[in-house]
Amino acid sequence: MKAYEVVRQQLERQILTGELSVGSLLPAEREMATEFGVSRAAVREALRAMSAQGLITSHVGAGPNSGTRITAQNGPALGHLLQLHVALSQFPIDDVVEARIMLERYSAKLAADNATPEKLTGLDQLLTKMEAEFMELEEFNELDTQYHIAISQLADNQLITTLTTAVRQALALPIRKASQNLPDYQSFRRDLNKQHRRVFCAIAENDREGAAKLIEEHIRTAYAILPMGGSGD
Amino acid sequence: MKAYEVVRQQLERQILTGELSVGSLLPAEREMATEFGVSRAAVREALRAMSAQGLITSHVGAGPNSGTRITAQNGPALGHLLQLHVALSQFPIDDVVEARIMLERYSAKLAADNATPEKLTGLDQLLTKMEAEFMELEEFNELDTQYHIAISQLADNQLITTLTTAVRQALALPIRKASQNLPDYQSFRRDLNKQHRRVFCAIAENDREGAAKLIEEHIRTAYAILPMGGSGD
Repeated sequence: MKAYEVVRQQLERQILTGELSVGSLLPAEREMATEFGVSRAAVREALRAMSAQGLITSHVGAGPNSGTRITAQNGPALGHLLQLHVALSQFPIDDVVEARIMLERYSAKLAADNATPEKLTGLDQLLTKMEAEFMELEEFNELDTQYHIAISQLADNQLITTLTTAVRQALALPIRKASQNLPDYQSFRRDLNKQHRRVFCAIAENDREGAAKLIEEHIRTAYAILPMGGSGD
Repeated sequence: MKAYEVVRQQLERQILTGELSVGSLLPAEREMATEFGVSRAAVREALRAMSAQGLITSHVGAGPNSGTRITAQNGPALGHLLQLHVALSQFPIDDVVEARIMLERYSAKLAADNATPEKLTGLDQLLTKMEAEFMELEEFNELDTQYHIAISQLADNQLITTLTTAVRQALALPIRKASQNLPDYQSFRRDLNKQHRRVFCAIAENDREGAAKLIEEHIRTAYAILPMGGSGD
């Protein structure tokens, strides 16, 4: 095993057993080097790797928050990694789409359970913006991602939101590429918006089964039209 | 931005745009250092981080497979990262349990759709082993994890299997700790096995709704008994 892997495994073991928790301050680089019997460069490499995983953050300086600590950031690191693995086609696109449908059906149901007019104000405003007469693909794709993430946030389960965001973001680039090949993007966009609005209404009416059914139909309809290189459903 | 982050961002961008794909050979360390205008140490730190994320692997030597390549390994890196984030309590345990139920209901349905006697041989043998008169907690917990992963594999969706495995493994340590506090572990284990067998039968009978309902009941019953520090349902 390489020197930096020794450091990483030791630190990860301490996280899994609970010795290290969020906010824990790690020893200085040279102390860890001595403790694990490796070079300071190896410690630094291990810390870089764990920083990329969203597990630690470093602050320079001499203040009370300086040093390297176990961090509280989770979603972005996981989502980013999933996005990279999907980009490498490690997962067949159809598998990703089916996982997306499972996640969004679940979110839509819980969103419908939790919906109140106050909670839906933001989503309503977002939809109104998306329903503009004309909108460039790039901008719409970004708002579309936000729409699906907003529904998962209404479901009020942090892990589901993280996974939904990750899967939707992983698909953002393939969706954008496929959308560029459509003969009439604005007409496609208008159809998507009708479907988005129908899902919104079902959620607003606390109709959990309706919301789940409509979001599944919406996703399947979109993939049936977009040429994404999967088996096409 | 730190020097190693420049390298990482450039390589990740090339993955997202498809310039780099699985099997692509990266340039030598010193070439990348020149190309990105950073030190070789910075390149090495970036590569360590990406190796930890399961995106690249390095082989030393002069053979046809030597050098650093974009890799094909996905599930373990994602699952491992999810496990670490759950260990840091970044996600409330109730959120993780509900996500687990969503994933396993989905897997159970598809497993029931796909089930044939041949495909179920392995799962049946695993269950028979788990149904031994007596078994240590440690060994049973390991087989129990395998049982749930095996069902997700029958569902035949790689991303769902990865997520189910990650969530179940993230819970393996909390489950083991909570199980140690039970007054009669063997009796608890026998109850779990009855539930495991019922789920198996529903899958074998291609009863998708029954399989989903039984696996949800099984997971909820277990968490209601195990003292895990969540809200307890």
